[in-house]
Amino acid sequence: MRVLILGGDGYLGWPTSMALAARGYDICAVDNYLRRNIARETDSEALMPSPHLPSRAELFHALHGGKIRVEIMDCTDYRRLEWLVRDFAPDAVVHYAEQPSAPYSMIGFVEARRTLVNNLEATFNIVWAILEHAPNCHLVKLGTMGEYGTPNIDIEEGWLDVEHNGRRHKFLYPRQGGSLYHTTKVLDTDLLWFYARTYGLRVTDLMQGPVYGLDTAEAAMDPRLAPNFHYDDIFGTVVNRFLVQAVTGVPLTVYGRGGQTRGYLNLKDTLQCIALALDNPVPAGQLRILNQFTEQFTVNQLAERVRAAGRVLGLDVRVQPIPNPRKEMEEHYYNARHSGLLELGLQPHPMTEQVLVEMLGRVARHKEVIDVRKLLPRVAWNKP
Amino acid sequence: MRVLILGGDGYLGWPTSMALAARGYDICAVDNYLRRNIARETDSEALMPSPHLPSRAELFHALHGGKIRVEIMDCTDYRRLEWLVRDFAPDAVVHYAEQPSAPYSMIGFVEARRTLVNNLEATFNIVWAILEHAPNCHLVKLGTMGEYGTPNIDIEEGWLDVEHNGRRHKFLYPRQGGSLYHTTKVLDTDLLWFYARTYGLRVTDLMQGPVYGLDTAEAAMDPRLAPNFHYDDIFGTVVNRFLVQAVTGVPLTVYGRGGQTRGYLNLKDTLQCIALALDNPVPAGQLRILNQFTEQFTVNQLAERVRAAGRVLGLDVRVQPIPNPRKEMEEHYYNARHSGLLELGLQPHPMTEQVLVEMLGRVARHKEVIDVRKLLPRVAWNKP
Repeated sequence: MRVLILGGDGYLGWPTSMALAARGYDICAVDNYLRRNIARETDSEALMPSPHLPSRAELFHALHGGKIRVEIMDCTDYRRLEWLVRDFAPDAVVHYAEQPSAPYSMIGFVEARRTLVNNLEATFNIVWAILEHAPNCHLVKLGTMGEYGTPNIDIEEGWLDVEHNGRRHKFLYPRQGGSLYHTTKVLDTDLLWFYARTYGLRVTDLMQGPVYGLDTAEAAMDPRLAPNFHYDDIFGTVVNRFLVQAVTGVPLTVYGRGGQTRGYLNLKDTLQCIALALDNPVPAGQLRILNQFTEQFTVNQLAERVRAAGRVLGLDVRVQPIPNPRKEMEEHYYNARHSGLLELGLQPHPMTEQVLVEMLGRVARHKEVIDVRKLLPRVAWNKP
Repeated sequence: MRVLILGGDGYLGWPTSMALAARGYDICAVDNYLRRNIARETDSEALMPSPHLPSRAELFHALHGGKIRVEIMDCTDYRRLEWLVRDFAPDAVVHYAEQPSAPYSMIGFVEARRTLVNNLEATFNIVWAILEHAPNCHLVKLGTMGEYGTPNIDIEEGWLDVEHNGRRHKFLYPRQGGSLYHTTKVLDTDLLWFYARTYGLRVTDLMQGPVYGLDTAEAAMDPRLAPNFHYDDIFGTVVNRFLVQAVTGVPLTVYGRGGQTRGYLNLKDTLQCIALALDNPVPAGQLRILNQFTEQFTVNQLAERVRAAGRVLGLDVRVQPIPNPRKEMEEHYYNARHSGLLELGLQPHPMTEQVLVEMLGRVARHKEVIDVRKLLPRVAWNKP
């Protein structure tokens, strides 16, 4: 199978490229270094340095033998993207090529506009490059569980059967994102559903929760092949922030009351999910939506887990609630279905104490270069 | 009241500018002639020529005394737009500045991209210009009833109370547009709702049905002040197409089975609705959605009405179903609520036989310049 991976330099794009190359798939990884550029501009660089994409691909080839073609280009440039789709002739595209930071999208006009334009145009362009040059290609798109927001009813897997005044209709599940970034993913889904039902595009839209972990079979070969680890307020997830705070003796900063519930998953499970989606393509005209996470818990529960894992390593982990910089519900109902990927064969790797202990150990080895100032929120969801 | 009208050269923008100026409001009309340019490029020019916007404003001033400031500029240019919002300091913005043709948005990549970029960026920019420079300003946005599509349940006014597995949640009514143009309006609504609930923007989003009519108090002063009348397949509505076909003796072209039901309204009622929305602004943080139409009927019923009106003028009007170039349901349930504007005081002008007879008479005066080839669909909803 020939797989084009857009956003191949990212936290998920790079491990996906290696994992699929290791399965013997022909891989082409595309990136324009948008995340690296934003990280530099906002002083949010990753904890461990990582070589540029062509160097990582060379190193992977030297150590493993698998080949990853690399193209450094911008997916909002349609001429280059359509050239690449013609040239590489993919059977599937995995589309990660989006500005992925919610706080970045909330800084101000320039950052919001960059997020909207990049994410919408990249999605629009890959849809058209497939329609025009690889019409049977299966588009596997990364959405986010954050598209659903936190409704007071069960979150279904993409679609909602509504009974109203004695009649029924099945709708795309109504979406409401918590940041402009999340909203662009809502718009992506609207666009993909339009082109699937109208022009017969084949799409899998994966509504993914926050991913944690650094450990993949290929990344284990060399530290320079490791996924990016961001702990800052721009790109860092709450899991990474808590791990770094635990290691440096800074209290875990819970935003507000800490009852925010989300569905999480291990990086190893993201790799499984992508492979399962690729190996089970959908018919023309279908938008398949799969909720991609394995466990759901609150921020307070996550803090407790990190505290317990820290205790194993002799770390005295404290928790310190701080005012919530975001606009979000801090106590809410949350029950999200996630059976589709399990039915396809996903074998979950839960967030055990052992997993957290290993991540803490990994982070501790870089303790001296951690800048704890990056851990506090610099962006608030305030009116500009 | 100071009102900025984006898209002030359009079928609705121009009559709105005159009507509000006649009420004594300070008006600034903005346009970049996108519709005129597309009309020229696609050989879809209006039936009656109309002077450019500054000339129309001068003529209106000479005949009526009311003053309409004109700015020829592109709303996707944020620097100019924010300059104008600072300079004019509007109390309200009426946002019509969108590529309004569904068939145009379905021609191919270039036209789809132009529609997406123009509509999303214009909306995004006006949101930010208001947030940054006129934070109390009320944004009155033109959406479309087409955002809802044709669900098998009642269409509510913007929001849907869902009961599911014993719990309840009120969602933005789920939307599914029938063309890329309609989809961009869905995306607009998502964006507006995000910025209303997050940054306290005040928004009225008017879900409007197809508008018909040429007759407004101000337009009656001089034929050069008349609204644009398009009868082509790109900008022409089904009402205009049927009127022109009736006058030229060409059978009315019903697309497919003709059971497509929509909510229609008279141009006079659009003007009332805009004034009612402006005179009843919403509090900060509120997105008010109003369904803007007065009557609903099927395409076949519309054809019958035109046939009956033609009979009054001695026209032998025939009906000829043709293959549907669009992807849409041709027989479907349709029951859309529209009480909000009536509660605000709307006095509907129904589509009486007299109204249609007058429009037929008006069109007949230009019979010799009608190009009947423009009446047939040139764009199909096919895979590119």
